[in-house]
Amino acid sequence: MTNPTPEILEKLAHVSTATLTTSLFRRGFRNVFIQGPQRMNPGPNMVGPAYTLRYIPAREDLDVLDSFADRENPQRKGVEECPEGAVFVIDSRQDSSAASAGCILATRLQMRGCKGIVTDGGFRDTPEISALEMPAYHTRPSAPTNLTKHHAVANNDPIACGGVSVFPGDIMVGDNEGVVCIPLHLVAEVAEETEEMTVFEDFVLEMVQNGASIFGLYPPTDPETKEKLKAWRQQNNR
Amino acid sequence: MTNPTPEILEKLAHVSTATLTTSLFRRGFRNVFIQGPQRMNPGPNMVGPAYTLRYIPAREDLDVLDSFADRENPQRKGVEECPEGAVFVIDSRQDSSAASAGCILATRLQMRGCKGIVTDGGFRDTPEISALEMPAYHTRPSAPTNLTKHHAVANNDPIACGGVSVFPGDIMVGDNEGVVCIPLHLVAEVAEETEEMTVFEDFVLEMVQNGASIFGLYPPTDPETKEKLKAWRQQNNR
Amino acid sequence: MTNPTPEILEKLAHVSTATLTTSLFRRGFRNVFIQGPQRMNPGPNMVGPAYTLRYIPAREDLDVLDSFADRENPQRKGVEECPEGAVFVIDSRQDSSAASAGCILATRLQMRGCKGIVTDGGFRDTPEISALEMPAYHTRPSAPTNLTKHHAVANNDPIACGGVSVFPGDIMVGDNEGVVCIPLHLVAEVAEETEEMTVFEDFVLEMVQNGASIFGLYPPTDPETKEKLKAWRQQNNR
Amino acid sequence: MTNPTPEILEKLAHVSTATLTTSLFRRGFRNVFIQGPQRMNPGPNMVGPAYTLRYIPAREDLDVLDSFADRENPQRKGVEECPEGAVFVIDSRQDSSAASAGCILATRLQMRGCKGIVTDGGFRDTPEISALEMPAYHTRPSAPTNLTKHHAVANNDPIACGGVSVFPGDIMVGDNEGVVCIPLHLVAEVAEETEEMTVFEDFVLEMVQNGASIFGLYPPTDPETKEKLKAWRQQNNR
Amino acid sequence: MTNPTPEILEKLAHVSTATLTTSLFRRGFRNVFIQGPQRMNPGPNMVGPAYTLRYIPAREDLDVLDSFADRENPQRKGVEECPEGAVFVIDSRQDSSAASAGCILATRLQMRGCKGIVTDGGFRDTPEISALEMPAYHTRPSAPTNLTKHHAVANNDPIACGGVSVFPGDIMVGDNEGVVCIPLHLVAEVAEETEEMTVFEDFVLEMVQNGASIFGLYPPTDPETKEKLKAWRQQNNR
Amino acid sequence: MTNPTPEILEKLAHVSTATLTTSLFRRGFRNVFIQGPQRMNPGPNMVGPAYTLRYIPAREDLDVLDSFADRENPQRKGVEECPEGAVFVIDSRQDSSAASAGCILATRLQMRGCKGIVTDGGFRDTPEISALEMPAYHTRPSAPTNLTKHHAVANNDPIACGGVSVFPGDIMVGDNEGVVCIPLHLVAEVAEETEEMTVFEDFVLEMVQNGASIFGLYPPTDPETKEKLKAWRQQNNR
Repeated sequence: MTNPTPEILEKLAHVSTATLTTSLFRRGFRNVFIQGPQRMNPGPNMVGPAYTLRYIPAREDLDVLDSFADRENPQRKGVEECPEGAVFVIDSRQDSSAASAGCILATRLQMRGCKGIVTDGGFRDTPEISALEMPAYHTRPSAPTNLTKHHAVANNDPIACGGVSVFPGDIMVGDNEGVVCIPLHLVAEVAEETEEMTVFEDFVLEMVQNGASIFGLYPPTDPETKEKLKAWRQQNNR
Repeated sequence: MTNPTPEILEKLAHVSTATLTTSLFRRGFRNVFIQGPQRMNPGPNMVGPAYTLRYIPAREDLDVLDSFADRENPQRKGVEECPEGAVFVIDSRQDSSAASAGCILATRLQMRGCKGIVTDGGFRDTPEISALEMPAYHTRPSAPTNLTKHHAVANNDPIACGGVSVFPGDIMVGDNEGVVCIPLHLVAEVAEETEEMTVFEDFVLEMVQNGASIFGLYPPTDPETKEKLKAWRQQNNR
Repeated sequence: MTNPTPEILEKLAHVSTATLTTSLFRRGFRNVFIQGPQRMNPGPNMVGPAYTLRYIPAREDLDVLDSFADRENPQRKGVEECPEGAVFVIDSRQDSSAASAGCILATRLQMRGCKGIVTDGGFRDTPEISALEMPAYHTRPSAPTNLTKHHAVANNDPIACGGVSVFPGDIMVGDNEGVVCIPLHLVAEVAEETEEMTVFEDFVLEMVQNGASIFGLYPPTDPETKEKLKAWRQQNNR
Repeated sequence: MTNPTPEILEKLAHVSTATLTTSLFRRGFRNVFIQGPQRMNPGPNMVGPAYTLRYIPAREDLDVLDSFADRENPQRKGVEECPEGAVFVIDSRQDSSAASAGCILATRLQMRGCKGIVTDGGFRDTPEISALEMPAYHTRPSAPTNLTKHHAVANNDPIACGGVSVFPGDIMVGDNEGVVCIPLHLVAEVAEETEEMTVFEDFVLEMVQNGASIFGLYPPTDPETKEKLKAWRQQNNR
Repeated sequence: MTNPTPEILEKLAHVSTATLTTSLFRRGFRNVFIQGPQRMNPGPNMVGPAYTLRYIPAREDLDVLDSFADRENPQRKGVEECPEGAVFVIDSRQDSSAASAGCILATRLQMRGCKGIVTDGGFRDTPEISALEMPAYHTRPSAPTNLTKHHAVANNDPIACGGVSVFPGDIMVGDNEGVVCIPLHLVAEVAEETEEMTVFEDFVLEMVQNGASIFGLYPPTDPETKEKLKAWRQQNNR
Repeated sequence: MTNPTPEILEKLAHVSTATLTTSLFRRGFRNVFIQGPQRMNPGPNMVGPAYTLRYIPAREDLDVLDSFADRENPQRKGVEECPEGAVFVIDSRQDSSAASAGCILATRLQMRGCKGIVTDGGFRDTPEISALEMPAYHTRPSAPTNLTKHHAVANNDPIACGGVSVFPGDIMVGDNEGVVCIPLHLVAEVAEETEEMTVFEDFVLEMVQNGASIFGLYPPTDPETKEKLKAWRQQNNR
């Protein structure tokens, strides 16, 4: 599978995770929304292929402060190897009782051109991470060093994150609601479909704001609705 | 039981859910605060009778995208039938891993004059719902379409919401802390009592802000307290 | 053990809970961050010795409204006895389905010169508590009176709070991320060490913001790093 | 939809819930196993159509001891109305902190010819219920009267039980592992298919017990496997 | 309050926890059944006054193997001080990830004439404890030494156990279903009432086993029921 | 690190998981007991090196019935590759809502000479697995095919199991209480120490059964205790 084109990524920058889940549901996917993590710093969509870090429970003889000096430590190595444009996705086993990472590593990822950081655990230094431009998603602030609970074991394994399977290269899209993981082979068609769905949903919302009933409109079972949509698209240049 | 008068509803617009729980506790009710949901759009109190939607777990053959076109689908029918002035209360079995509803349905409810929407699950399109005037309460953002987890099965059944029983017509009061469900037959007396309690609590808070001890004041076991209260009421015209 | 000097407390006012957990981890402590509670009113650090309130489950014959009038009720007595400068820490058994306290008691604590209030349950009157200057930490808003779930049983017992043991006199430090409990006998050395660590972390963050790799820098395994740090400290007068 | 014939029910008396879930998975159903309840009294399969009882949270003014005297109380009425041959399925909102029922009601159901009782909560009088012939499934023993937590609100509503939707008339099959709910319209084909699957699985297990590798055998991708199966069926008269 | 007489305790040896919860519910108590712990060694009822041990989370500098040698360690001291006839009740904060105690301490309690041991955590050496005559209740087997999670902090404090408040001296009654905590001042009347209730329930069960409907019988709203009960009591000498 | 000798494994066949956790605690390890799984078929100890299977959440396009035919499917491949003498340990993300494996695969492992199977999820076909000689540990019966929730992704990765890190080759020891994971490099010394500890514990238990106080005996702070132990060892030939 080849990586998505910039055009595809650009489309995904303007659709919502809600719309994406519906498009994937139409294709039989019921479990693509990362459960738990929320955006710390609202802003434009996060879009990029997944680069992963996998934690298992800490072990007292391995997870000592000195282990941070090891350049093969997957937490540290991952931060320096995650490709520009990628999203750093962490499997923390939904355990937010210790930090998945802190502001220094997150800042380094931002400096290296990464597009976001996602954990199903928690971050430390959250006031500082909240101030980053790079989107960051976690479940709750967690000050304790990762060494108390997490042993970094591998980079770019397929992982679980928030109850969802994430394969390296899958396209992560995050908005101010949360994060969706799109299986790589579906990205092109989902991007196209959701762009169209978004036009329709914007139309519907405007109609409803103007007093329309949802019957016949949402979904558009009334033939008139399709004509109105057509006119609205022309009027709004979409 | 007859519905509460506008005067009663107006009183409830100015008391807190904390005060309401204490008044109901005095009457033997220990479980009236909807556990979990929080206000997405802080503002004035939500007050109105409950109109309910009940979900059970989704079933793959029933919960397909086409089911939205069915005007008997209780999610869609409920949104068009919920009476003006009512609060739309959803039993999502405290499962926020799929959306209970999204911004189009919430907007339609607002346009139809409903007074609020409450779920013990999560909403999708949360940035948009947060911008509505109509109060909305949920537990966390949840992008996946309700079809992945929820099957809409009935309107206006008695339901569970956030661990509390809600009978259609019960009066829902929500402030920026959460939502209380008042059994219909108690609304008049609770509205009156909590109006009085609020006067007293405002007085106590001011005394404490001025340096008073809570002993003798809260509760007002010191006879002097009652005199001070009387003076304060006159002074503050309450 | 003697109480920490004002100088020590002042140092702790300028370090983060993340840094504190690492310093304590170095000493073999893995469980010092109160799990769950978050700050309601962001601001400067909370620092002070713990004064505790312990709740057990409510019992219907004991936990009645009249019990608030009893000056020996540990909830009320504690609020009037908590020493100036102390942090009021509540063991609510991580049960946030009823309030641990409300705005009147919290305001009284602030007026009496207490430095903060922490519960591993929830508070009621949260809009008002959020407006206090005194730091307040809880897990979520909870309107129901404590009588529905909590029986106040003792002051200044050693307690559990958020899964951490808190002994009266332990030093509680809270920032905008959460709260750490420092065993009293370690406060002096931890304060000193974390002050130094904070200088180093600020230096590292600035280096990373300027494009440095974390390798060799964090931790400072590259000898050059230590020289740079020295220069930076002079330059920044730290 | 018509009810299943005795022949179909008889087939279901001899297949496992594991096999049933696979057959339903083949048809796109992923959520048919009641999560949580376990068999209290191991024995032959339970098979029968669902008759339901729905609980919502108790309310102190409604759920008093006198309410048991009301013949319209759905808990009591349901026990006297549940048809012979049916399985009594209770939606207890997965709350086992109070009893869903006790031995007197369970015994009455057995006497009336019911085929089983299932709750996603807990039963009281569990030593006595464990001694019944009628299969009983629950999550854990729970002595408190249902009045403390559950308000019986309706019979034969579609319900949630153990995270699964159960419509009245759906066929419940329980073995010593747990309970599956088969949507009524699929019962005939699933009964037939699982009878065949069971023959194959028995064959495979015997082969494996005799030392065979699972490769080529399970699933039977090796052509030889199908011939061996044929011979085995003849030999074993199945 | 005086301790219950041997006659009262003897009555409680022959009633079920289910019946006790109903009797206490009649008096307004909704939360008396210890949630979670189950009997490891089925047998006759456990009856006796509570003697308590309170744990808080372990602290690495305090909870070391040497601490077991301290005769003031409340875990060890409690085992040697718990009075003959008492039930040893442990507040483990519902955390069963480390042992509350093991077979040596449990055996010592049995030898000292204690009537039972209850924790809302787990025990280690469970095969051995299951073989004791003294009733033991826990939630699940848990091998790790208590030092990994629990710090023994006090004996005979009022505690929480399984979500229920237990005051020293309260009467603990356990059967093969679980454990109830009876507030001391109610023991006499509850013992008497439940003895009577048990007679009635035995009668009802026999009637139902003989084919009677529950209507009119349970509760005995049919006047004939009371006559039948009278006859049954004479016949059965109860 | 070399694998443990048969002598070491034999020693581990006669010590308890409780004793092992204490020995590892002495070495600074607090998290070695697999939390959750319990033995389905009580019997002699399970001892052997870990061979692992890692699951991530299922994905609808990958986890179809046909995937079982793929000999590279790590669930199937693992069952045929797990070395004789090894323990098959499964990371099911503590999700027991679908089966980790069933009786055919478990039987195949037994036939191949494996020493046990452990999952932190649940098994299907539990009546049959309970009848195997090979020890099996899970959290609860779970009929649904693994395809509904689990995607088998790798063999012999380091994994999390029951909240504990398990590296391939670590020595798994299971008794009728649960399973401990011993880091490979510590096996020899832990086996030796726990053999000694077991002698002492057996002595202590016998003393306590004969009426001894634990003070001075457990731990043996009384000098006399050591002499008695010496005598007891001679007498009992240990």
